[in-house]
Amino acid sequence: MKLSIVLSLQPTQFTALTFQGKMGKHLRKIKTLGYDGVELAIRDPSLLDWNQLEESIKTSGLKVPAIGTGQAYIEEGLRFSSPSYDIRKRAIERIKLHILLARRFQAGVIIGLIRGKVEGNEDIRRGFDWMIDSLKACCEVAEKEGVSLWVEPLNRYEINLINTIEEGLALLSQVGYKNLGLLPDTFHMNIEEPIIEESLRKARPYYQHVHLADSNRWAPGFGHIDFKSILQVLRETQFEGFLSAECLPKPDADEASERAIKFLRKML
Amino acid sequence: MKLSIVLSLQPTQFTALTFQGKMGKHLRKIKTLGYDGVELAIRDPSLLDWNQLEESIKTSGLKVPAIGTGQAYIEEGLRFSSPSYDIRKRAIERIKLHILLARRFQAGVIIGLIRGKVEGNEDIRRGFDWMIDSLKACCEVAEKEGVSLWVEPLNRYEINLINTIEEGLALLSQVGYKNLGLLPDTFHMNIEEPIIEESLRKARPYYQHVHLADSNRWAPGFGHIDFKSILQVLRETQFEGFLSAECLPKPDADEASERAIKFLRKML
Repeated sequence: MKLSIVLSLQPTQFTALTFQGKMGKHLRKIKTLGYDGVELAIRDPSLLDWNQLEESIKTSGLKVPAIGTGQAYIEEGLRFSSPSYDIRKRAIERIKLHILLARRFQAGVIIGLIRGKVEGNEDIRRGFDWMIDSLKACCEVAEKEGVSLWVEPLNRYEINLINTIEEGLALLSQVGYKNLGLLPDTFHMNIEEPIIEESLRKARPYYQHVHLADSNRWAPGFGHIDFKSILQVLRETQFEGFLSAECLPKPDADEASERAIKFLRKML
Repeated sequence: MKLSIVLSLQPTQFTALTFQGKMGKHLRKIKTLGYDGVELAIRDPSLLDWNQLEESIKTSGLKVPAIGTGQAYIEEGLRFSSPSYDIRKRAIERIKLHILLARRFQAGVIIGLIRGKVEGNEDIRRGFDWMIDSLKACCEVAEKEGVSLWVEPLNRYEINLINTIEEGLALLSQVGYKNLGLLPDTFHMNIEEPIIEESLRKARPYYQHVHLADSNRWAPGFGHIDFKSILQVLRETQFEGFLSAECLPKPDADEASERAIKFLRKML
């Protein structure tokens, strides 16, 4: 199992990101700490110089296992489940860009908050159907590009479409694309899954990337999630993907990233 | 330790209540299941016939250890931290009514969501100060009536004033009233407290009522919170108050209430 940590390339209000901005400096820091990879959180790929980004990543010696997309919802309100045709279309176009960028790194594209929260006055079933249609449109493009999309179940407070691993598995079979997988996140699982280890076992063939944050969303080791037991399940089930720290920059980004890798390395 | 369960006396959107409405029938059911008490969730005490309520409770043979107040925020937007003088005043007046009603049952009054969520465009420090002033006004009345107020730390998604036991303890000393205590809730603690048992020990002299819900807010036993360990701490620290089930009515209210007491009784 390899370790990565999230780096946001654009300013965002999203707080569960260990590093934000200043790419070159952060990449060196992440490499020096011993991480194998860096997960990139990107609001809008069209605002980045892709060749320069590729060059920086190459120089750093880090892999990019995944690209996060949720900032497009947080900052711009783009979402798959919107009643507005225009917003759905823009959300799909945005994710297509993420897919093209992900191809360069052989990374997966994370489908988290971009699903969007269906608002109180909207019909949740229609929102669900729009999400499905949007997902299919993205899966089709991703399939041609050889890229995987990963649906991350998020806790009930953040979203009302796919909170649990079980709902995620049902979604995969409904959408029906082989390049669509899941992305378990321990912080969300601590709220939503009756038994975290059981859910990880059940979903095992359907994920190749896992988000790690402790029960309070601080770096692993700051809360009460039993990571020893979780890593044991991943080991037993031959998980060989990345464990990616997506946590609050607390007490600050440097300490969070140092403590996370120190805590996890001794368990691997 | 005694067991109670939450019953809502008025219609509400608040989902974390095991029973809603139909008082007489529910009181009999709760008593028959073996609970010692019933926690009443009341949006507006002025809409109830207090003598009739007292009579029904007496007939049921149940104690009323606590009165919940959060529906006044959820349904009417009343809150201690509002920038609007009028809203703060109405929130305080409402809680004063809860205090007068609580006196009849020697119950505590829960100060949870009524603190309110400070909105993005508001100054959180001013909201905090307004909450303090509102709390003091209520404590003064409650002191005269011989009633205790209990501040319940709620997770970060529900509120941004007092999420943790530590913040709660600091608040108590800032407000400075002896009749102000805390109310730990295991569902919220699972998200906010690094180690639930340690926080329960640290806050021990400051609470006499505990909310129980599992990690997914279903009844205890449906999730992964270690209630055996939590009850052990409460036993060791001579907790003699009520353990009150405040959980989602899932799979339905009847099964939630039956499973909760069956699960907890064997640990007491």
